[in-house]
Amino acid sequence: MSEAKAKAGLQDVVAGDSSICLVDGKEGRLVYQGYDINDLAGKASFEEVVYLLWYGKLPNVSELSALDAALKQNREIPSDVLELVKSLSNSAANPSGMEILRTAASYLGAVDPNKAMDRETHIQQATKLVSMLASITAAVGRFKQGKEYVAPRNDLGHAANFLYMLTGQEADELSVEAFDVALILHADHEFNASTFTARCTVATLSDMYSGVTSAIGALKGPLHGGANEDVLRMLMEIDSVENAATEVANKLENGVKVPGFGHRVYRSYDPRGLVLKRYAKQLTEKVNNTKWFEMTEITEGVVLEHFAKKGKDLKYNVDLYSGSLYNAMGIPVELFTPLFVISRVSGWTAHILEQYANNRIIRPVADYVGPVDQKFVPIAERN
Amino acid sequence: MSEAKAKAGLQDVVAGDSSICLVDGKEGRLVYQGYDINDLAGKASFEEVVYLLWYGKLPNVSELSALDAALKQNREIPSDVLELVKSLSNSAANPSGMEILRTAASYLGAVDPNKAMDRETHIQQATKLVSMLASITAAVGRFKQGKEYVAPRNDLGHAANFLYMLTGQEADELSVEAFDVALILHADHEFNASTFTARCTVATLSDMYSGVTSAIGALKGPLHGGANEDVLRMLMEIDSVENAATEVANKLENGVKVPGFGHRVYRSYDPRGLVLKRYAKQLTEKVNNTKWFEMTEITEGVVLEHFAKKGKDLKYNVDLYSGSLYNAMGIPVELFTPLFVISRVSGWTAHILEQYANNRIIRPVADYVGPVDQKFVPIAERN
Ligand SMILES: CC(C)(COP(=O)(O)OP(=O)(O)OC[C@H]1O[C@@H](n2cnc3c(N)ncnc32)[C@H](O)[C@@H]1OP(=O)(O)O)[C@@H](O)C(=O)NCCC(=O)NCCS
Ligand SMILES: CC(C)(COP(=O)(O)OP(=O)(O)OC[C@H]1O[C@@H](n2cnc3c(N)ncnc32)[C@H](O)[C@@H]1OP(=O)(O)O)[C@@H](O)C(=O)NCCC(=O)NCCS
Repeated sequence: MSEAKAKAGLQDVVAGDSSICLVDGKEGRLVYQGYDINDLAGKASFEEVVYLLWYGKLPNVSELSALDAALKQNREIPSDVLELVKSLSNSAANPSGMEILRTAASYLGAVDPNKAMDRETHIQQATKLVSMLASITAAVGRFKQGKEYVAPRNDLGHAANFLYMLTGQEADELSVEAFDVALILHADHEFNASTFTARCTVATLSDMYSGVTSAIGALKGPLHGGANEDVLRMLMEIDSVENAATEVANKLENGVKVPGFGHRVYRSYDPRGLVLKRYAKQLTEKVNNTKWFEMTEITEGVVLEHFAKKGKDLKYNVDLYSGSLYNAMGIPVELFTPLFVISRVSGWTAHILEQYANNRIIRPVADYVGPVDQKFVPIAERN
Repeated sequence: MSEAKAKAGLQDVVAGDSSICLVDGKEGRLVYQGYDINDLAGKASFEEVVYLLWYGKLPNVSELSALDAALKQNREIPSDVLELVKSLSNSAANPSGMEILRTAASYLGAVDPNKAMDRETHIQQATKLVSMLASITAAVGRFKQGKEYVAPRNDLGHAANFLYMLTGQEADELSVEAFDVALILHADHEFNASTFTARCTVATLSDMYSGVTSAIGALKGPLHGGANEDVLRMLMEIDSVENAATEVANKLENGVKVPGFGHRVYRSYDPRGLVLKRYAKQLTEKVNNTKWFEMTEITEGVVLEHFAKKGKDLKYNVDLYSGSLYNAMGIPVELFTPLFVISRVSGWTAHILEQYANNRIIRPVADYVGPVDQKFVPIAERN
């Protein structure tokens, strides 16, 4: 039983095989089932990418329309779930969108009468999760703004329907395209923290809802999905194009990690960030709301110069430019991490399917560094 | 960036340091913060062990009484949580106790107004989770039997209060002692699957409720905590002392994994199983309900002989004898895995505290084995 001590955080440890997604950290390339994301973003729809991740091939017309119909059937939120979401959104404790989604995902599993563990059931559950977590996120957005729930529309695609359910209005074409692209870019990312957590969960042969619930909990953290909210919150706190450079530089001086930068795997640029930056520039100009985009660019310059001076090969990541983009679509900051869920749930479920297909319980060991051979003393005699 | 390919399921990979618990798989020893479980079980209370896991030392009288008071303050289930638990327990979808606990744990986090991330807050949250998940489990047991919720009693210890809330009656001394010991024995087990999942979750700096919710999802699986229910369900299906040996042997012949046997780390006996077997024998004899215990012993004999013949150093694990023990206490099978939660939540929260104290995001990599360089073809041209 030879034991290999891994680097902290399992850095560079190959935890298993996967055929879903290739992250080439050196070249800054991201590939889903053999397709470069630059070939998918803007050309295929998010629904096609969902199909690709689950089935390993892009769908033909009839395969896509079957998936599309199944997704649409799962858009309407059942009344008990809606009530739970509404009461949490209005709770005085002010739960985050992520806490509400985590609870809703777990609840959806509890009230699903089909507890079977076969692939057909799992695909149905994955379909429900992809569709309904989007509807629930839109509902949270409505309730948190004191507005009424907007029912889904089945004549719209997944991205357009989400924006419609959130705002009550049909979004313009560029917003729909940009949002669809954002969904595609966030869809999967190999053994990232939330996906790996999902795999750990279901490797005990627990159910798919448990896996997705765990993943939402992991994504919530500021070192992972939470960073996309933190970027815009930071800019809003600075709230001035003029002061951005100095204030960001101050943060770096004080050893504060700036959200939107750094990555465990990318040592070159993050290919998703490049695409999002392009859309953010285009959309913020179109809607004449360029402040956050400008401040983001300034931040980029300051942080990258700082890293370069220190000889660190860190770049900006997917979370840096999504904030100004989502803001230009009129989406409130507190929904940004839930937007990550709406997309990544496609990858989580793909990885869960893959884990089930070739499973072994994930159970590493620890290096024990605690006290040894303590002598038990009855409570009355303890100091 | 040298990459080490780990064995499947991260077997033998040292994923980090920990001072909480030592599992000596060769010697069959389990040690919490330097104390052998055999020195704790029956001598200390579960509450003392909770303190030990969180603070690294056994409490003195005043430390214990402070923890005890804090736990008691968190026994009563708030009305909104109770309503959620009741409606799920009565749902036609028949959610398992684990699905209800997973949802309730997430909900408790959402409605906790204190979202701070300091140790004091985390200890408060851990205290709430240890106390309230026990109350919720008892409530699930009541509701699932069509009975009314029983309010907690603050003159009873943690183990005795749980049995009281479940049955509405004060339990006999031997049951309370056996249950307290069972709680101690299940309290922690190093980087087991659910604990490791909890650590993966909070390593993004996500909150403690997210960590515990994930862990419940992982524990639910039949390769992990789910096995304790499966043992008794298997025996109930066989339902005959006479046929037990043949039927278990048939399962092994057919390559079916028998629940309650095998372990990733123990290659010698599981020290928890030995203690539980002793209590199971004693209690089942006392209440004159020895059938499941007898069948378990027969199963033990058959499986161990089978392993020995094949030269496998597998023994029975903690889940084998807990079933007949819990059954003799009048606890329904569908609560067995939730009982595991009631105990292990102490270890999960200890590990979450330890992870926060020295954190790095847990993000391994995958070996990509999928297709490469696929050429994008528009949907109309796809087969
Ligand atoms: C993504 C992230 C968690 C990766 O973590 P990791 O692989 O464990 O990397 P580390 O935290 O060990 O960072 C390596 C070094 O770069 C520095 N660094 C990393 N990200 C940084 C950031 N965003 N700002 C400033 N410094 C940063 C670290 O301080 C560390 O410096 P040191 O070696 O002098 O201690 C990390 O880069 C980070 O926290 N980024 C900010 C949050 C974020 O944007 N997350 C979303 C990722 S998509
Ligand atoms: C606990 C467990 C998940 C450990 O998993 P693991 O370390 O991945 O071990 P493996 O499943 O690879 O088992 C190793 C070998 O022993 C066999 N084995 C393990 N547990 C077995 C069991 N309970 N019954 C029959 N055979 C078993 C496996 O089939 C495998 O045989 P092989 O090498 O011929 O394929 C596994 O032993 C198991 O599934 N046990 C039953 C469920 C259970 O009781 N879980 C609670 C654990 S506290």
